[in-house]
Amino acid sequence: MQATAELQVIPIGEGVSVRKEITRIIDLLSRCPLQIEPHASGTDIQGEVKEILGAIETIHTTLHNEGTVRLISYLKLETRTDKTPTLADKKL
Amino acid sequence: MQATAELQVIPIGEGVSVRKEITRIIDLLSRCPLQIEPHASGTDIQGEVKEILGAIETIHTTLHNEGTVRLISYLKLETRTDKTPTLADKKL
Amino acid sequence: MQATAELQVIPIGEGVSVRKEITRIIDLLSRCPLQIEPHASGTDIQGEVKEILGAIETIHTTLHNEGTVRLISYLKLETRTDKTPTLADKKL
Amino acid sequence: MQATAELQVIPIGEGVSVRKEITRIIDLLSRCPLQIEPHASGTDIQGEVKEILGAIETIHTTLHNEGTVRLISYLKLETRTDKTPTLADKKL
Repeated sequence: MQATAELQVIPIGEGVSVRKEITRIIDLLSRCPLQIEPHASGTDIQGEVKEILGAIETIHTTLHNEGTVRLISYLKLETRTDKTPTLADKKL
Repeated sequence: MQATAELQVIPIGEGVSVRKEITRIIDLLSRCPLQIEPHASGTDIQGEVKEILGAIETIHTTLHNEGTVRLISYLKLETRTDKTPTLADKKL
Repeated sequence: MQATAELQVIPIGEGVSVRKEITRIIDLLSRCPLQIEPHASGTDIQGEVKEILGAIETIHTTLHNEGTVRLISYLKLETRTDKTPTLADKKL
Repeated sequence: MQATAELQVIPIGEGVSVRKEITRIIDLLSRCPLQIEPHASGTDIQGEVKEILGAIETIHTTLHNEGTVRLISYLKLETRTDKTPTLADKKL
């Protein structure tokens, strides 16, 4: 099942600037079999539901292993059966 | 890896009232090995990350199979390594 | 115009534990002419749209004045014209 | 107080396609004194907190007046005191 999504991951307690962690998160997303479009408030994603959800688990596990203590992910996940959802189609 | 989470699933295009779909979603969540606390704007969840993410896929697949055409899930997923995250601990 | 809402405010860079800030945020919300129901992932709110939006500005201004450097608010705001939206009505 | 934000407004019960409403919402945002960057999952915004919050109320009021029965807004609102937040600065 293909989906479009948006993911924003926030490290809590790593300081006011979280650029290092956000860079790492987009690096991890870019290695997944997903189409990604980073923007100012998160990353838009197109791909299989399983891959999107798996990427979230990978991000949490990897960042925790690399020392980030607390993480919150904010996900919007959209699926539909009348047509294949794509990021291109969601732009006006 | 244990997490706390909040999930809200919105059916688009099923009419102004979505009570039937929300009831079904909470029914599906209640069958998962998760602690759930439904509230007015979603359902708070405690459990393994894999189970939480799997529940989202199950909800989308099941509701689509039952006729809902379009769904958006809004997920907050929180993990931390300094202690085991619980819903009880997040209440003041 | 009455609305139901959910607000979660996250302080970034104040350390891994943000209990002090969350306690202050709920304290500020409780002084507004709003019905509030704090839960593990935010606070459900019922009241006038203007009051809800004004409360968010008050929270950001107050916490910044009290020393919090960076804040992100996550708001769900719901309005409808077929009936007056209430938190009670959104519970199953 | 300047903020960066992301706004997604979802009409419930207007049918599976909500392109007409989304087009109207971005039209309304473009008339506000705000910098906006629409993307596939919402619109990134930079501007004064008061203007951003006011735009949300305008959108709900206008769309309800034009016939949309039920609306949910999803807002991320970010402020910080160590520097002026900008969309440009939030891109990697």
